[in-house]
Amino acid sequence: MNQLIIKPTLLLDEKKCRRNIRKVYNKAVNKSLIFRPHFKTHQSLEIGSWYKELGVNKITVSSLEMADYFSSQWNDITVAFPVNILEIELINSLAKRIQLNLMVESIEAAIFLMSHLQYNIGVFIKIDVGYKRVGIDPSNREEIDAIITLLESSDKIIFKGFLAHAGHTYDCRSKQEILRVHKKSVEILRNLKDQYQLRYPHIINSYGDTPSCSVAEDFEGIDEIRPGNFVFYDLAQVQIGSTDISNIAVAMVCPIVSINKHRNEIVIYGGGVHFSKDNLQDEVYGKIYGKVVNKNEIGWKDELTGAYLKKLSQEHGIVSMPEHLINDYSIGDTLVILPVHSCMTGNEMKSYLLEPNKEITRL
Amino acid sequence: MNQLIIKPTLLLDEKKCRRNIRKVYNKAVNKSLIFRPHFKTHQSLEIGSWYKELGVNKITVSSLEMADYFSSQWNDITVAFPVNILEIELINSLAKRIQLNLMVESIEAAIFLMSHLQYNIGVFIKIDVGYKRVGIDPSNREEIDAIITLLESSDKIIFKGFLAHAGHTYDCRSKQEILRVHKKSVEILRNLKDQYQLRYPHIINSYGDTPSCSVAEDFEGIDEIRPGNFVFYDLAQVQIGSTDISNIAVAMVCPIVSINKHRNEIVIYGGGVHFSKDNLQDEVYGKIYGKVVNKNEIGWKDELTGAYLKKLSQEHGIVSMPEHLINDYSIGDTLVILPVHSCMTGNEMKSYLLEPNKEITRL
Repeated sequence: MNQLIIKPTLLLDEKKCRRNIRKVYNKAVNKSLIFRPHFKTHQSLEIGSWYKELGVNKITVSSLEMADYFSSQWNDITVAFPVNILEIELINSLAKRIQLNLMVESIEAAIFLMSHLQYNIGVFIKIDVGYKRVGIDPSNREEIDAIITLLESSDKIIFKGFLAHAGHTYDCRSKQEILRVHKKSVEILRNLKDQYQLRYPHIINSYGDTPSCSVAEDFEGIDEIRPGNFVFYDLAQVQIGSTDISNIAVAMVCPIVSINKHRNEIVIYGGGVHFSKDNLQDEVYGKIYGKVVNKNEIGWKDELTGAYLKKLSQEHGIVSMPEHLINDYSIGDTLVILPVHSCMTGNEMKSYLLEPNKEITRL
Repeated sequence: MNQLIIKPTLLLDEKKCRRNIRKVYNKAVNKSLIFRPHFKTHQSLEIGSWYKELGVNKITVSSLEMADYFSSQWNDITVAFPVNILEIELINSLAKRIQLNLMVESIEAAIFLMSHLQYNIGVFIKIDVGYKRVGIDPSNREEIDAIITLLESSDKIIFKGFLAHAGHTYDCRSKQEILRVHKKSVEILRNLKDQYQLRYPHIINSYGDTPSCSVAEDFEGIDEIRPGNFVFYDLAQVQIGSTDISNIAVAMVCPIVSINKHRNEIVIYGGGVHFSKDNLQDEVYGKIYGKVVNKNEIGWKDELTGAYLKKLSQEHGIVSMPEHLINDYSIGDTLVILPVHSCMTGNEMKSYLLEPNKEITRL
């Protein structure tokens, strides 16, 4: 397939991707959890259909724009992002068409929704389980109570429960560390629901992040999971300890445009506008933007040891290539490179190549 | 204008932008330099037309895709990127329609072009003046001679001269440092041309980077300049010493979706997919992704001291807001933020808002 590629192209290994989906889906089913996958990673109706084939009928997104895009094929969507009240028109338009769930974490947002909603929606209260980005401190019962009272007083809002994202698992570097963060986060949500369930028996706990949902087995107190990145995984997830490099389902193919044998460097057509500038601190190589893998006829196989993407300009990427391998390459060849952060790389590339002449698009 | 904005939007201050263009244009005219601005920063036919109004008729781009986009209105385009031989079909298609100049830095690329070109093109030899990304070492006369001999033997190629990008000015942190890099880079090109001009009297030296072209006055030995970023500038250019913060011509407007008074943080709808993940090490704030500026009715004015973008997720941005200011803001307000790297932010946003209802697009 790679011979046909003449410019930076994002390959998607459909088999790995479907396997990743099935694995987390099975876990959810086995544990009787509602599976509401986050679609911000792939943002593709076609990939969404692979979830549909398994019977998934609820999804998560991180913007109203994404909700709008997916609303053509999905009618139960949670926007796991603090409600942007400036987009009330789109909120009402979506609420008219689908089961829309929003997330609030302030009295101001609750009041705004109460007075501007024209159609029914569900609302989750966002709880900060330790990531410290957004959400209410779980010990701040006064604010939680005040918001619930407001939500319950509205005839357009159904209070759905508590929602959290254990984003601090992204700082973990092993399964053990992930499980420690997971345990604490789940405990917080469980305690919270325990205290409110008597008054609001229908509420659920919605929880999600790829590291936790990939490695944890104990979800007691959780009703719904919302991981997203697992659909593709990436080098960052491998470093965190969520998965193995063999499960990464996307890779960039980039033409070689320059070779510098004195510096053991290969320059590719493929830069920050293709990979994004996300990077990670690799134990062996230092700061990297991707790792080179060996090609095969239909995609890629194992890591090409010692070869990594070390620098990015807007359109150029500089690959460090071991001295004993550099003579294997010429300009006009292509390199296949695993990305550090597949959500961001997908966003840059806007389409996925599955096989020759089979390209799928995204938002 | 800002009240109309309901989601992350890139504002363009047309007045500042045209002033930036005119300033470098005037410098080029005064020094009898060919002005071939790099259009990779703005990538917009409309902004291109502002250059046209001044009489500019030659441009630079960094991909064949960009050359193709601009070829509808520009017929003299240099692609300042090592030629991607896999795109030979597009090269021939462009060469048929416009005066196309490519850049080579290897014998392999020269041979490939010689045997595959169907129409005439100009070719520059890329010289590495110290940035160490791509280009031939200027002391490697053997390779330079070999490439020139090849180019000159082709009836489809005109050897145009030497091209360099002093990208290492981006590591500078003052005008003095920029001028030191500039002086050395220009000397290298001048010496090179001196040695080849007798044999090839028509050759020119093409040189460019925004820091040098913004602050240097001595361009002896240079015939053409190709800066690009100066059209917008950004916080990185202010840190390098190329310009003043008041000349930055683009800014992001982002809705406030969450306020955390305990942490003095404001969360905006505006993340890595809007700003890009480019950041800089600020002397006062540490790692930043942008600086907040005060709004006015039609755009923005001076810096809001102490307020900066300190972290980005995919869709979220976390702004550090001084304690004494945080009570001035509510969810549903917007913040205006200067980007670290305008080339990358423009690439994410894909359009510019000039005034209410006046939006211009780009590639």
